[in-house]
Amino acid sequence: MKPLGPIPPGYDADAEGRLLIGGHDVTALIGQAGDTPLFAYDLGMVARRVEQLRAAMPAGLEIHYAIKANPFAPLVAAMARMVDGFDVASDGELARAIDAGMAADRISFAGPAKKARELEAAIRAGATINLESEHEADRALSIGEALGLPPRLAVRINPEFELRGSGMRMGGGAKPFGVDQARVPALVRRIVDAGADYRGLHIFAGSQSLDRDAIIETQANSVALARVIDQETGTRAPLVNLGGGFGVPYFAGDVALDVEVIGAALAEQVGDEASRYAIELGRWLVAEAGVYLARVVDRKESHGKVFLVTDGGLHHQLAASGNFGTVVRRNYPVAVATKFGAEPEEEASVVGCLCTPLDRLADDAMLPRADAGDVIAVFLAGAYGATASPAAFLGHPAPHEITISPESAVILT
Amino acid sequence: MKPLGPIPPGYDADAEGRLLIGGHDVTALIGQAGDTPLFAYDLGMVARRVEQLRAAMPAGLEIHYAIKANPFAPLVAAMARMVDGFDVASDGELARAIDAGMAADRISFAGPAKKARELEAAIRAGATINLESEHEADRALSIGEALGLPPRLAVRINPEFELRGSGMRMGGGAKPFGVDQARVPALVRRIVDAGADYRGLHIFAGSQSLDRDAIIETQANSVALARVIDQETGTRAPLVNLGGGFGVPYFAGDVALDVEVIGAALAEQVGDEASRYAIELGRWLVAEAGVYLARVVDRKESHGKVFLVTDGGLHHQLAASGNFGTVVRRNYPVAVATKFGAEPEEEASVVGCLCTPLDRLADDAMLPRADAGDVIAVFLAGAYGATASPAAFLGHPAPHEITISPESAVILT
Repeated sequence: MKPLGPIPPGYDADAEGRLLIGGHDVTALIGQAGDTPLFAYDLGMVARRVEQLRAAMPAGLEIHYAIKANPFAPLVAAMARMVDGFDVASDGELARAIDAGMAADRISFAGPAKKARELEAAIRAGATINLESEHEADRALSIGEALGLPPRLAVRINPEFELRGSGMRMGGGAKPFGVDQARVPALVRRIVDAGADYRGLHIFAGSQSLDRDAIIETQANSVALARVIDQETGTRAPLVNLGGGFGVPYFAGDVALDVEVIGAALAEQVGDEASRYAIELGRWLVAEAGVYLARVVDRKESHGKVFLVTDGGLHHQLAASGNFGTVVRRNYPVAVATKFGAEPEEEASVVGCLCTPLDRLADDAMLPRADAGDVIAVFLAGAYGATASPAAFLGHPAPHEITISPESAVILT
Repeated sequence: MKPLGPIPPGYDADAEGRLLIGGHDVTALIGQAGDTPLFAYDLGMVARRVEQLRAAMPAGLEIHYAIKANPFAPLVAAMARMVDGFDVASDGELARAIDAGMAADRISFAGPAKKARELEAAIRAGATINLESEHEADRALSIGEALGLPPRLAVRINPEFELRGSGMRMGGGAKPFGVDQARVPALVRRIVDAGADYRGLHIFAGSQSLDRDAIIETQANSVALARVIDQETGTRAPLVNLGGGFGVPYFAGDVALDVEVIGAALAEQVGDEASRYAIELGRWLVAEAGVYLARVVDRKESHGKVFLVTDGGLHHQLAASGNFGTVVRRNYPVAVATKFGAEPEEEASVVGCLCTPLDRLADDAMLPRADAGDVIAVFLAGAYGATASPAAFLGHPAPHEITISPESAVILT
């Protein structure tokens, strides 16, 4: 038996034992969406998450959403009304952000290899380009000059420090992201002198950290670094994006972050200048609000082991299969959504429909008995699910996606 | 410095030092396709691969192509004229196979969670369903009865043996694939008695093996197993699909398989019954014929290390980034395609355009100096590349794909 990850708080069953998502039972949601496999995103849960974060963070601090975590258009449109800015990573995401109604001057564009087409789109729209190198600065200035539009430019710093205990380190030592800390003041002076609209600094030191103290330390380092850069350049950065890094508990033993303690520490750091800072979160805002639903097509026994073979799989939920950025495979939180209240009674493995042994959604898990027709729920599917998976692998259709609004109206796409 | 994998034989440079693919230099190919990132597939190399295999294998043995390795329509259409059958893994791949002109009775459909829609499509088309369970047999027979069409059914066996040293083991012990060996005779009798068109047996014990002796042993075990099943059922399997498992050398130190030795051993096993057997290969037929081309957008230095930041990345070539089915990241064969003849002169890391440290195409590799505008080639991109990668991740456009015909006409899509 291998443990399952913790089911996020806020999920209950109806009287028939069916999982409820945003007040709707999974059978009804699948009916409305048309079929499984289905990603269902509870916008009410997203809104509560944003509210919790606002209450925890110093008043006035900007909260930005990183669209890469979940670019599903109805979710992004709802998010545009909840947060203060979007971070995008491509011209595709830039278009998505603008379509969602976010003001262009509240959109920042990071990414280590922005193409000329992308720089031009950002400058035309009036979005902020987070510069990743001196060469990119030259390119953006040159495109801005050709267009007759002064570009909005911020500088992404590759800091000397890193986010300790982070799932993915993005600072500290040689990195492809941002400009080495020591070269940042010269670059800021160069873009100010060139007449660009200097928008500030971007420091992103890591992601998916569940270490509260490490996040506090990184934020303190980032605030201090921004002040040093300001002093060295003699120019006050209008906005300092402190990045994200807030993790969510995927696996057994993981404990949710205490964002209230992080917020209190950050308040001490930023003092009365909170409104000059932003944090940029993706996963933490949306992961728990999403559930991936797949139907059991076959219940098989092989050499005494039970396999629940579903119509879902790693082509939609690569990370849950353990094949994206993880070395040791561990189980995400998984449940039988049509028997959500029931006690576990047997050990079973949940697999997908692909012809590869990599396609596992839960290994040797204790679950209620499930048969063909039952629905499996994989939690924490709101971030880095549908778009972070090889959807075309083996020629299956794209998954269905649905958002559930807090007013209980269901939006389909 | 970390070693690069071996560049497959058959790739040369023109007088300007540009990599030639199917006789065309990469600059011309990118021009025809429109832009980078680009997958280029050399159909002449695929044809030579099929010829080599035919010459090596016992005369009459059927060679099948597993579309999942590369479902690009022009490649599949060309392959339909080279091989004796296709294996598909979804209704999407079934449609692709039929569109390519392969006769339906030469298509077999494997997959552990075939939906009712998929079983119906296969039965209507007249493709062979490789049954993965008794429950699936009941479902196929019932759908066939409702349609008034006797289904073509084969049985996929979960064998007691496995392919030793295989990248992915698909037999031996409890598995979600196929029917446990001991239960196969009863299932064969059941489908014969039910009036289905019994098509034979399917044994797929592993994949990506570079261990010649292990493949020989597995093929011998598979032939012997099919004979035992025939005896126990009193019914001769019309076709025995021995699966694949032939690997290609991705990493430094890997050595190509000696298919001639494998073929000679198989000839001894099958005797004068070669035409009753098939082997089913995907990767071995197409991997080496594909090259992924990405352009350097930025050449960065960070703390003394060189990063070549390209417009490609793991959203197109997930396996090359080390994030799909591998535990330890190793470098695929990678080269500067615009300086293919040049001597290595510096250590550089090749990264993609995504905002994640996972997006690496080559780590600390010795390469000729490359600058913005140069093109990077990632070899072995003909199999499990474009469709086995999270194309929608971060909102970038799909990669371009192109086939190059042996007649030097270029087909675009």
